[in-house]
Amino acid sequence: MNKFRELFNLDLPIIQAGMVWCSGAKLAAASANEGIIGTIGAGSMNKELLDKHILKAQNLISKNNHLLAVNFPLLYHDIEAQLKVALDRGIKIFITSAGSPNKYTKFLKDEGRLVIHVCSSARLAKKCENAGVDAVVAEGFEAGGHNGRNETTTMVLIPEVVNNVNIPVIAAGGIGQASQIRAAHALGASAVQIGSRFVVTEESSAHHEFKNAIINASPGMTKLLMKKYIPVRLLENKFSKDIQELESAGASKEELKTLLGKQRAKRGMLDGDLDQGELEIGQVSGLINNIKTVKELVQEFRLAYQE
Amino acid sequence: MNKFRELFNLDLPIIQAGMVWCSGAKLAAASANEGIIGTIGAGSMNKELLDKHILKAQNLISKNNHLLAVNFPLLYHDIEAQLKVALDRGIKIFITSAGSPNKYTKFLKDEGRLVIHVCSSARLAKKCENAGVDAVVAEGFEAGGHNGRNETTTMVLIPEVVNNVNIPVIAAGGIGQASQIRAAHALGASAVQIGSRFVVTEESSAHHEFKNAIINASPGMTKLLMKKYIPVRLLENKFSKDIQELESAGASKEELKTLLGKQRAKRGMLDGDLDQGELEIGQVSGLINNIKTVKELVQEFRLAYQE
Repeated sequence: MNKFRELFNLDLPIIQAGMVWCSGAKLAAASANEGIIGTIGAGSMNKELLDKHILKAQNLISKNNHLLAVNFPLLYHDIEAQLKVALDRGIKIFITSAGSPNKYTKFLKDEGRLVIHVCSSARLAKKCENAGVDAVVAEGFEAGGHNGRNETTTMVLIPEVVNNVNIPVIAAGGIGQASQIRAAHALGASAVQIGSRFVVTEESSAHHEFKNAIINASPGMTKLLMKKYIPVRLLENKFSKDIQELESAGASKEELKTLLGKQRAKRGMLDGDLDQGELEIGQVSGLINNIKTVKELVQEFRLAYQE
Repeated sequence: MNKFRELFNLDLPIIQAGMVWCSGAKLAAASANEGIIGTIGAGSMNKELLDKHILKAQNLISKNNHLLAVNFPLLYHDIEAQLKVALDRGIKIFITSAGSPNKYTKFLKDEGRLVIHVCSSARLAKKCENAGVDAVVAEGFEAGGHNGRNETTTMVLIPEVVNNVNIPVIAAGGIGQASQIRAAHALGASAVQIGSRFVVTEESSAHHEFKNAIINASPGMTKLLMKKYIPVRLLENKFSKDIQELESAGASKEELKTLLGKQRAKRGMLDGDLDQGELEIGQVSGLINNIKTVKELVQEFRLAYQE
């Protein structure tokens, strides 16, 4: 555990995950203020909006500016402009995903930044290490939102990745309470990344109807769907049932793409359309029963590190 | 942890899982001799064969006869005759699965036996507790062979079940080495059930070609298939690819049933037909690299319980 904490200069080895529509300046700043890595999700922002969020977060952070991170899905069309914005604003921690780690790692390392890449297999983790990243997030099948194709769960993925690389491994997927943090470290992880649980905080920008839907969700109410297009874990609603029906009938990638259309994620998670919106959330939603402040959550998580 | 160990009178709270075609007398007896619960899988036996295996196991066990268990998939047509055989031979631990816990729990408890039921959701676990079982196995999505429909992984399922019942919870799915045992206990499990790792032992009755296929399997090479019929996790081979192709095209339950046909599991796991046989194994197969004796394995697992 020490290597990760030293490298990133923090006390609790926890990352609040960058998430589309849910993790803006407010959430990331609150996380950094509590001594964990707070991440702005750039995937739902253009470069102007990203710039605003970074600046706002930096103003909200009373100390720990070095703990502000940005998550960049590399498939974003304006990715280079986004990276430049974050570089110019002095962001230290770059978390990249959904693309090759070979693309920007060297460039960012040459700029003196810490780079973490998200992977869902031991094979890709090795590729990340070879590309020169400082750490990898290994994300299991139970995670919300976009997900890997081989469906390996956190319980199996973490030991596989730990066996395969020498850099710190950050466990993600299915982690939302102290017992799960402890389990992740038992599996060999140096740190954990937590997403879904932070969606249901005061500081998250998720629509309150989406937060309530997560609180009311029973166990087993998420499903990994859209496997022929881009696998994504969604909370059960009218939209997810429509996808399931199409998939069960053998729909093609193109048919799924058409159903997905545009702005479904914004509609669900930011605008609160619980019927027709895309509600990205992890399996751990079945264990989330209330809205908390980031301060309260991190206090709970701290218990995982005490005897 | 104490409650389970006291109830079952054992040192290490580990169950060697009952598995079709792999866990006969030899494996179960070797496990019991090492101080863990050793389970004969009755799912692939008629009552005469089951009787032979129980008798043989009892002869092979030098001590710890109370640790010999039998696993009964309740959907088996001759289930009552099977239960009678085990009762008559003095089996103490009955592990039931694939059916309602209300069916035989009271009957078995009245006969003075310990009853464990296998479940894959917090809801079913509560039903098991109400039916009067002594403990539940909570089995995650990563487990080999037949599996639940809601795809909840061990990381999420164990806390859900632990929250929902007061009886001991046995974690299963994705557990094959000491770090994973530690993780399961961190999640709140009182014990663990381990299947796949025991398939690849000297004492398992799996065909040596099947054992070698598991050893050679890379991470990510199993898949949960047959979801429209009975979900089952299989190692990738010609047969599993045929299923995937059919499913991708929207095949019906009947078409899948026809492809499955009869005796596919025996053909794969006992007869070693790696092309056309059904190879039931868990995700943890990606972490299994050698054949061990049960004694060696249990020695390794013991490390999970030391500081």
